[in-house]
Amino acid sequence: MLNHESAAADRVFHALAEANRRAIIQRLTRGPATVSELARLLGVTVAATVQHLQVLQTSELVRSEKAGRVRTCQIDPSGLRRAEGWLRLQRTTWEHRLDRLGDVLGESATDHTTTTTPPDDPSKEPRS
Amino acid sequence: MLNHESAAADRVFHALAEANRRAIIQRLTRGPATVSELARLLGVTVAATVQHLQVLQTSELVRSEKAGRVRTCQIDPSGLRRAEGWLRLQRTTWEHRLDRLGDVLGESATDHTTTTTPPDDPSKEPRS
Repeated sequence: MLNHESAAADRVFHALAEANRRAIIQRLTRGPATVSELARLLGVTVAATVQHLQVLQTSELVRSEKAGRVRTCQIDPSGLRRAEGWLRLQRTTWEHRLDRLGDVLGESATDHTTTTTPPDDPSKEPRS
Repeated sequence: MLNHESAAADRVFHALAEANRRAIIQRLTRGPATVSELARLLGVTVAATVQHLQVLQTSELVRSEKAGRVRTCQIDPSGLRRAEGWLRLQRTTWEHRLDRLGDVLGESATDHTTTTTPPDDPSKEPRS
């Protein structure tokens, strides 16, 4: 992973590691909200909400824009995609390795059997 | 989200918010490794590696077992699934909302048009 990508992953996972910030994201998946609405939802001050929003914006999980005195926030999909993509890659790499391991063990079991059963018999695959 | 689930999500995202810990996970998706092998990979001390592993084990991203004096580590899929599952839920909730919004805007555009074009004409869907 390149350095800037690694730093971006640090930021997005750090942003997600806090219940109030995750609650903001969960709320915004259902539509935009103002800072005041988010503060009421969390039961914290507007100042505390703004701090959480800054962390979420730096990690590209939320974007916001101001119209007059009202700042409205919405989901920025970039951060969600970055975090989910990294996790999916790890899980699929791990699952593919288990599949290959199962294949190897299956072949090995077949090699050591007097083959009255066909080699692709699923019951011969110790894929626990 | 229930409190214990929220605490588990805190832990797993916190564990992922550090490049060395992500490097350990990336390595273990390709197969088990000993603590010494992981320390060499990271270029840090065994003690530092053990600390990272403790964070990863607490968040159910890694499990390990000791045979004699050698501790071997492998992926624990629970943590990866928890983090990926939370992110997928947020992304799909957000995408479904966008889809519904697109449908509503599409219907609205159809209502206000003298319909010489069929209502499902994609060019009428302001799905930017």
